[in-house]
Amino acid sequence: MTTRPSVFPGLAAADALRQFRQASPLVHCMTNDVVQSITANVLLALGASPAMVIDAREAAQFSAIASALLVNVGTLTSARAESMLAAIHAANAANKPWVLDPVAVGALRWRSEFCQEIIRFRPAAIRGNASEIMALSGLSASGRGVDSADSSGAALPAAEALARQTGAIVAVTGEIDYITDGAQCLAVSGGDPLMTRVVGTGCALSAVVAAFVSLPGNRLSHVAAACRVMSCAGELACRDAKGPGSFTAAFLDSLYLLDDRHLTETATVGGAQ
Amino acid sequence: MTTRPSVFPGLAAADALRQFRQASPLVHCMTNDVVQSITANVLLALGASPAMVIDAREAAQFSAIASALLVNVGTLTSARAESMLAAIHAANAANKPWVLDPVAVGALRWRSEFCQEIIRFRPAAIRGNASEIMALSGLSASGRGVDSADSSGAALPAAEALARQTGAIVAVTGEIDYITDGAQCLAVSGGDPLMTRVVGTGCALSAVVAAFVSLPGNRLSHVAAACRVMSCAGELACRDAKGPGSFTAAFLDSLYLLDDRHLTETATVGGAQ
Amino acid sequence: MTTRPSVFPGLAAADALRQFRQASPLVHCMTNDVVQSITANVLLALGASPAMVIDAREAAQFSAIASALLVNVGTLTSARAESMLAAIHAANAANKPWVLDPVAVGALRWRSEFCQEIIRFRPAAIRGNASEIMALSGLSASGRGVDSADSSGAALPAAEALARQTGAIVAVTGEIDYITDGAQCLAVSGGDPLMTRVVGTGCALSAVVAAFVSLPGNRLSHVAAACRVMSCAGELACRDAKGPGSFTAAFLDSLYLLDDRHLTETATVGGAQ
Repeated sequence: MTTRPSVFPGLAAADALRQFRQASPLVHCMTNDVVQSITANVLLALGASPAMVIDAREAAQFSAIASALLVNVGTLTSARAESMLAAIHAANAANKPWVLDPVAVGALRWRSEFCQEIIRFRPAAIRGNASEIMALSGLSASGRGVDSADSSGAALPAAEALARQTGAIVAVTGEIDYITDGAQCLAVSGGDPLMTRVVGTGCALSAVVAAFVSLPGNRLSHVAAACRVMSCAGELACRDAKGPGSFTAAFLDSLYLLDDRHLTETATVGGAQ
Repeated sequence: MTTRPSVFPGLAAADALRQFRQASPLVHCMTNDVVQSITANVLLALGASPAMVIDAREAAQFSAIASALLVNVGTLTSARAESMLAAIHAANAANKPWVLDPVAVGALRWRSEFCQEIIRFRPAAIRGNASEIMALSGLSASGRGVDSADSSGAALPAAEALARQTGAIVAVTGEIDYITDGAQCLAVSGGDPLMTRVVGTGCALSAVVAAFVSLPGNRLSHVAAACRVMSCAGELACRDAKGPGSFTAAFLDSLYLLDDRHLTETATVGGAQ
Repeated sequence: MTTRPSVFPGLAAADALRQFRQASPLVHCMTNDVVQSITANVLLALGASPAMVIDAREAAQFSAIASALLVNVGTLTSARAESMLAAIHAANAANKPWVLDPVAVGALRWRSEFCQEIIRFRPAAIRGNASEIMALSGLSASGRGVDSADSSGAALPAAEALARQTGAIVAVTGEIDYITDGAQCLAVSGGDPLMTRVVGTGCALSAVVAAFVSLPGNRLSHVAAACRVMSCAGELACRDAKGPGSFTAAFLDSLYLLDDRHLTETATVGGAQ
């Protein structure tokens, strides 16, 4: 009973990005060791403000101040798990949205249990690859870590089940990104395989999702806008990039320069359905 | 009773940079998770040597070996606070200067208390934005994290009070940087707004301040030289940068290539007074 | 009784790289805070998959899944030391190779003791600079942290002794890299001094060594291939680089684009012996 995905219109992405830049969301990022810098730089390039606060006392204080909270379990430790829980509860108490990036869930036992625990606490959105979303939903997955061995389309039923179970918008990203609330589904394409050769593009997307869900308006559409903004910047960056090094610089430049024209002129979806 | 700032001369910056490159200071960086890489790369580009040592035992041993110690509380944890204290005491015992970057002090309670505690231990310099310096000095601040909602000029009285209280050189940075010992004040301008779209430019400046204060000579002037070297490299990098991605690469190149001519020919201060 | 090093042939590097790209090794990186991102990006650029897993429970589970384990003690803490030990034992139990990067051993007491302890657990390879290898072998060293004050050639006897003592392939890297199993020795040259102005090129090399030793075939030759792939990409990147910023982007691009022609046409060793 999977719904047929509809193509997310570029105009809606452009509207959301304009709203984003006006609001300049302050994103509390509790993320993994590897992607701290690119996550912050992606948010800054788009006009948001990142802040990484990790001590349990401070994290609880800060997630009530911030516009949104990101929880990424990539390099989970006991201390961080405790801080994340404190931040999630404080965010919920302050009515601030929080977003989960379930990195490598399915492949590793402890973080899988931790994520099963925290998805009970009303995440606004969950962003993962096919393996992660399938594992988190309880369906089988073949992940071997941070890569996804499954295609995003194959995980769509899992994404829908997970959305219905948690109340979150679920984005399962890959060659095509599917964004669902369990009833409706949007499809976003674009990007470039080169993005998978740069660490943190997926993790940074989750931070951008957190920034977008802090905006008023339709949350399903906002999560799709986050996906489209990143895939559009990826496409633009790949035009001149010779490899992953020049891509990264061009990607940040593209996020910074991205305007309505880019988002409305480029094709949003080739083969999505 | 704020002193009238005098413009820091480019020639003094050029002299200090020459001295810096000959000495190649070894900087013990205890800094936050997000900026480790750019901090190290900025120091390396300038010809200094960074070393990040964080275990309490090792940090105490290392800060006695290093030329200077940087303490940045951006992602403070209990374990790191303990290590920082051990390193500060060892640096003081070995007569090595240490520098404080009070990231987000004012916005977050625990780190504010921690910084109030450690500024009693004779920092050689303190580098922060207007909100942070105002909060640390006990004057009010409107910070919402790592950004500064106040202009550096507005924080000059706070910087002077803090310098007199702690004995440190205090640099309050922004569109114009003010560097004060509580009696005299130097002004450094330059840089570019694009620098605020790259994470870690401020934190890396604090590491460069630590490297400069390890040199013999006038410490007030050395801290101003650190500010000017960074703002000058920022200006040069912005000439060709299309956005924050290309800026970062060009900024590191500029630090590496920076010479007397750049520091003496470019205007040091436009509107400072 | 040092053996005369023989020049490592470019053809062998090209063969190994082809094997590497087909296998796409999954490398479990337990490395320091500063180099997480560049380590991951170097592995991704070459076609391998990095994964940083640091909690003791998960690290033990993951090193049995991964192709190889990297242990880098650059920012060692008690918690990480415990996790590293768990991962090393799990890797050995699963017959997966692990590689040691003894950052700053010799300069700092605690990590020196830790590395002395773990080299008893059969590392497949050890990669360090001259000071580190001399200190680890018990010969004297003059390191002041992460730099090496000794030349790699001077450390060759120490490298050979260490290889015989531990059973590991030992790579002592510098202007010329020497790779030894205690009986035979290969020499690899190339690279560029600019590489020393970018943080993590050495640490990332150790991760690439871990990826290469996971491949079937001659392990001495595979470690030399890792050194040659990195020095060749460094040479190519320096052709157009203006400084360390543009170098880093070009270096990742070169690793991505590196082919047989680059590895066989460029001179492997100028002055090695």
